[in-house]
Amino acid sequence: MLDRSTVIGLLFGFTLILVAIVTQGNLLVFASLSSLLIVVGGIVAATMVNYSLKNIKNSFTTISSLMGVKSVDLRTDMELMSMFARRVRSEGLLVLEGDIEHIKDPYLRNGLQFAVDGFKQESLASILQNEIQSRKRQVEISIKVLQSMSNYAPAFGMIGTIIGMVLMLQNVSDPESLGSGLSVALLTTLYGTIFSNMLFGPLAGKLDYLSKLDLNRKEMFRVGIMSMMEKENPRIMEKKMLIYINPKDRAEYIKHHEELTIKRQRDQKLYSQWIEQQNNEWETLKKVLEPG
Amino acid sequence: MLDRSTVIGLLFGFTLILVAIVTQGNLLVFASLSSLLIVVGGIVAATMVNYSLKNIKNSFTTISSLMGVKSVDLRTDMELMSMFARRVRSEGLLVLEGDIEHIKDPYLRNGLQFAVDGFKQESLASILQNEIQSRKRQVEISIKVLQSMSNYAPAFGMIGTIIGMVLMLQNVSDPESLGSGLSVALLTTLYGTIFSNMLFGPLAGKLDYLSKLDLNRKEMFRVGIMSMMEKENPRIMEKKMLIYINPKDRAEYIKHHEELTIKRQRDQKLYSQWIEQQNNEWETLKKVLEPG
Amino acid sequence: MLDRSTVIGLLFGFTLILVAIVTQGNLLVFASLSSLLIVVGGIVAATMVNYSLKNIKNSFTTISSLMGVKSVDLRTDMELMSMFARRVRSEGLLVLEGDIEHIKDPYLRNGLQFAVDGFKQESLASILQNEIQSRKRQVEISIKVLQSMSNYAPAFGMIGTIIGMVLMLQNVSDPESLGSGLSVALLTTLYGTIFSNMLFGPLAGKLDYLSKLDLNRKEMFRVGIMSMMEKENPRIMEKKMLIYINPKDRAEYIKHHEELTIKRQRDQKLYSQWIEQQNNEWETLKKVLEPG
Amino acid sequence: MLDRSTVIGLLFGFTLILVAIVTQGNLLVFASLSSLLIVVGGIVAATMVNYSLKNIKNSFTTISSLMGVKSVDLRTDMELMSMFARRVRSEGLLVLEGDIEHIKDPYLRNGLQFAVDGFKQESLASILQNEIQSRKRQVEISIKVLQSMSNYAPAFGMIGTIIGMVLMLQNVSDPESLGSGLSVALLTTLYGTIFSNMLFGPLAGKLDYLSKLDLNRKEMFRVGIMSMMEKENPRIMEKKMLIYINPKDRAEYIKHHEELTIKRQRDQKLYSQWIEQQNNEWETLKKVLEPG
Amino acid sequence: MLDRSTVIGLLFGFTLILVAIVTQGNLLVFASLSSLLIVVGGIVAATMVNYSLKNIKNSFTTISSLMGVKSVDLRTDMELMSMFARRVRSEGLLVLEGDIEHIKDPYLRNGLQFAVDGFKQESLASILQNEIQSRKRQVEISIKVLQSMSNYAPAFGMIGTIIGMVLMLQNVSDPESLGSGLSVALLTTLYGTIFSNMLFGPLAGKLDYLSKLDLNRKEMFRVGIMSMMEKENPRIMEKKMLIYINPKDRAEYIKHHEELTIKRQRDQKLYSQWIEQQNNEWETLKKVLEPG
Repeated sequence: MLDRSTVIGLLFGFTLILVAIVTQGNLLVFASLSSLLIVVGGIVAATMVNYSLKNIKNSFTTISSLMGVKSVDLRTDMELMSMFARRVRSEGLLVLEGDIEHIKDPYLRNGLQFAVDGFKQESLASILQNEIQSRKRQVEISIKVLQSMSNYAPAFGMIGTIIGMVLMLQNVSDPESLGSGLSVALLTTLYGTIFSNMLFGPLAGKLDYLSKLDLNRKEMFRVGIMSMMEKENPRIMEKKMLIYINPKDRAEYIKHHEELTIKRQRDQKLYSQWIEQQNNEWETLKKVLEPG
Repeated sequence: MLDRSTVIGLLFGFTLILVAIVTQGNLLVFASLSSLLIVVGGIVAATMVNYSLKNIKNSFTTISSLMGVKSVDLRTDMELMSMFARRVRSEGLLVLEGDIEHIKDPYLRNGLQFAVDGFKQESLASILQNEIQSRKRQVEISIKVLQSMSNYAPAFGMIGTIIGMVLMLQNVSDPESLGSGLSVALLTTLYGTIFSNMLFGPLAGKLDYLSKLDLNRKEMFRVGIMSMMEKENPRIMEKKMLIYINPKDRAEYIKHHEELTIKRQRDQKLYSQWIEQQNNEWETLKKVLEPG
Repeated sequence: MLDRSTVIGLLFGFTLILVAIVTQGNLLVFASLSSLLIVVGGIVAATMVNYSLKNIKNSFTTISSLMGVKSVDLRTDMELMSMFARRVRSEGLLVLEGDIEHIKDPYLRNGLQFAVDGFKQESLASILQNEIQSRKRQVEISIKVLQSMSNYAPAFGMIGTIIGMVLMLQNVSDPESLGSGLSVALLTTLYGTIFSNMLFGPLAGKLDYLSKLDLNRKEMFRVGIMSMMEKENPRIMEKKMLIYINPKDRAEYIKHHEELTIKRQRDQKLYSQWIEQQNNEWETLKKVLEPG
Repeated sequence: MLDRSTVIGLLFGFTLILVAIVTQGNLLVFASLSSLLIVVGGIVAATMVNYSLKNIKNSFTTISSLMGVKSVDLRTDMELMSMFARRVRSEGLLVLEGDIEHIKDPYLRNGLQFAVDGFKQESLASILQNEIQSRKRQVEISIKVLQSMSNYAPAFGMIGTIIGMVLMLQNVSDPESLGSGLSVALLTTLYGTIFSNMLFGPLAGKLDYLSKLDLNRKEMFRVGIMSMMEKENPRIMEKKMLIYINPKDRAEYIKHHEELTIKRQRDQKLYSQWIEQQNNEWETLKKVLEPG
Repeated sequence: MLDRSTVIGLLFGFTLILVAIVTQGNLLVFASLSSLLIVVGGIVAATMVNYSLKNIKNSFTTISSLMGVKSVDLRTDMELMSMFARRVRSEGLLVLEGDIEHIKDPYLRNGLQFAVDGFKQESLASILQNEIQSRKRQVEISIKVLQSMSNYAPAFGMIGTIIGMVLMLQNVSDPESLGSGLSVALLTTLYGTIFSNMLFGPLAGKLDYLSKLDLNRKEMFRVGIMSMMEKENPRIMEKKMLIYINPKDRAEYIKHHEELTIKRQRDQKLYSQWIEQQNNEWETLKKVLEPG
């Protein structure tokens, strides 16, 4: 499941190129199955030598698995974590035992499970850190696979063009065929450049970007879990975690919570005034009712 | 709001290219809406696949929000911080409570608020450090967006040119149309090169530069806040902070303060001489007036 | 012994290029011994100046020696290590003395031998770390050799092409020979580009990839050995080591072991029920048999 | 004030290019004010967008201010520092109070001033370290300015050439004008390449090189000052500082000092022999003079 | 003194290019003193601006001084160090006083001298570390000089070619002269590409490679010296040092020493058996001889 921006970008880019061709000439001139085979085949072959077919497949599944990350609002995670922190503070870590299985994110779930299992603070810190490192290494391979596909694309485009030029130059006598020969030869370069700059390059960049968002979220969870284990004040944990949220969302979150506090205080005040009044009225009533 | 140097540079660069064209030939030859659409559309499409439209927008807002950083004179911050430090030294951290809301810079304001809120020195150190890291990561994405736009620009210029060349080579019979065909095909390369080297590349560089200035200022605040918390001598804090100011401004700042000190000492001396004289005169007067 | 993906990729890539040539023209046009000699000779000569023939040979032996790494399932290593850890926990480190010689991986064998030999924890930690660093440095040289071959390939392709063009341009009078001259001149560029992008480049990438897998496995062993020395709970060691396994295999491993545990608990339960029943029956029997 | 090597290199390089042109053709063919304006104007415009005019100016003043660094012989600094260290060892840090104002290098002067002012060892260590970091950051901006000028130069050369080619291809009918048109179009590429490789690139490299020498010297001072504060033996300080001197100068310095020591010991020996002889003679004299 | 691989590689490479030219055409066509002057002169001029003539000279002397490193067998150093370690263990550090002057390697000699001079462990550790850093920085400058020569070479090749093309395009009327003009113009590109890829590039790579070997050996000495100072068991020192030896040599070294140990044990056993037998015979003899 690709995200909207990627889908729209791909559609927009390829449409643009098609329109540019159709408005200026015949689309059939640009369609060449053999050119496509050289470029795509070359990219796949070189990437298979470099990695393996499985790695290529993995890169694409990694992208789709990370697509969800983008739409996650870290403030929801914040609210969940502060609720946990408040419960842990008052009732101890074991209170989370029942909640853990309902947590969706596997990193947070495992981290809290380890905490509940009684891991030493030091070991847990290193496990959580290493898990992030391990995840990073896994994704970096996928990014490199896409980057190498982006690098091989124009190279095989060039190989196809040189093959075409060598053949064309063999029969230089007919100038007209020479032109159309070069024209066909250039198609592989065109395909290679488009694949590199419209497909593999941007997808490699996307994976890098999504992976950074994902690791940022995991870092936020890590800081939160460690703070819970140290039994820190939930408000301190909140401030430590807020750093991983982008400035704009952070400002909104803080403002919203301040307003909540103010409203709660006002409610509290109204309630206590009301209580007081009630009491007063009761006092009045009592006096009235009091016998003599 | 762009800074003057950027605006002048952009105006100057584009004027230069226009003048170069007009003085040598017809400007209309270089105007091609379809070429512009391929290059700009391709850049936007590839960047949307790589990031998203929101990221592109963010990059430009980040540039304008950072433009203010350049005109800030760090010495003003220095004066403010040493005033705070002197007050904290004599009256304790809580004396800042009232001042905090008047501080404009959010990093300094939050940092001091945390200090007043009674955060442990260690936690505050890591929060201030992380905040800088977080800010750095945010801006780095914007820089990368602009850099990738700068990289995609010549690529789509080349794609446009190859499409044009393939079409031109199809009808090689008419040599004159061949020339003008290549001429049009080269326009996308021209546009791509100009966009990359006159717009996106330099803007990416600017963002990188401004972000470094901004982080430098935040580092200075961090050092200052930590020094206040440790109740260090304000003069030591000053010397620690001066390191973040560029050598020329630093020299001027130090000289100015030395002169201030000298002048103050001279005033003090004059005042005490005057007092002494007054006293002497009083003594003289007293003697005169004293009843025999 | 190359791995399947590399062999298939190489065969596929070169077949593709051959087919592309044969379907469009004469294969003989593309066969040029002298072009091959310039490109291959140049690559070897430059790499000999840069490193030495021995280094070139080493790079290829390193690739084949690392090919085995890919097919290793780290979960097998996990099982072995947890078996060791359980034995060490109950009977002490020396219990491994007899097992060590049966371990195939030299890193694990040496590491455990050092542990049994009574090295201090601190020294062993630094030896195991350094061994990984040393291995990394060794492989990095081989990677660089292949990368430099990949870089020199197109350069010598270009040198050959320029030599051909200079010769061709000397007798410009005959336009037909000019075409075929350029055609021959382009062959070295074609060879150089193919060698770089279909052979040396992907092989350098493969070596880098395999070396990362290998170092990851060594890191896993290192963490396991250190955990044994600290007499940590085998379950904690397992969780520390699981981080080096890729997420999918890890999930399967954990699930399998959970099922094992459940099954074992069920067996235990059945057995204890059966025992209880037996006892009951025995009690019944005893009662029956008891002499009134 | 540029250093000799830079001046000679620039003169030699530009003379070489001029001679190459004059011996083969007419110099006027290569002189084109409009080409120069596009390239230089483009470089300045893009660098202004990226940084600012002030930054460009700063880069050139930084180069000239660092030129002096090259001619400094670090052994002179060594002698000064060991003299200070010997005085500090026997009479305490405050003995330097009077000497400090005569020290030319501001880093050393400030460092020693801080030491005399009674800064804590730990604070001084971090101040000296940060000062080096701060200096490094300042110079890196100047290096980047020159590097970006070196990168923009060929880009604007290419922009000029494409503009020329587009214009030339418009009137393809006249083959002779076509040649001279392309000839003029190539001039901007020539200018851009020369500016990049003969001016901005090498100057950026020079600044990087000089800055490394400068930071190395500051590191040497830092090590020396910290050693003085710890009241280490001046000979140990000397050995710590010698590491920052290049091997050849270091060997000479050590040899010279060993010879000095040997000579001093020989003088001492001669003197003590002479003293002894004197005493002997005195003894003889005394005996002679002694009243029987 | 260059090493064999470098000399053979250079001879092989240049012979190859000559043969390629001679078999296809006239060598004189490719000989152009003016082209050579532009390329070589340009490289030297730009490198002089960037560094200085002295730095260029230094780079070549550094290469020849490091050539010896390659032929050093680190196992010889190992044997020497373990001999030292055994003597130090039994008789103390001062026992090395007499041996130090016979050590050839200056790093090891100085290091041990410092140890004997009674430096504190901590200071010596930092001196040995810094010495390696300092050496690294020195060599890195030489590597960069060669790399920048490798980068400037094709640039000046291109400058020469553009100058030639501009001149050629001025008199486009004569098509034959046009061909030979372009042919001459291409020579500078050919020279530049050959110099970059056959000379400066590979030599820069060689220097990098040799410097890594050299630093590896120094690291090995450092670890050994520190181990001696800590009076560690010579066998532990050996194991720590073995990490710096490449896996193949290491395996051989270990095997050889194990065989030595086995042989020594066998000799010991034979000797003790013989002694025992002697004793037995003596006992027998004694019994025989004993007076009843």
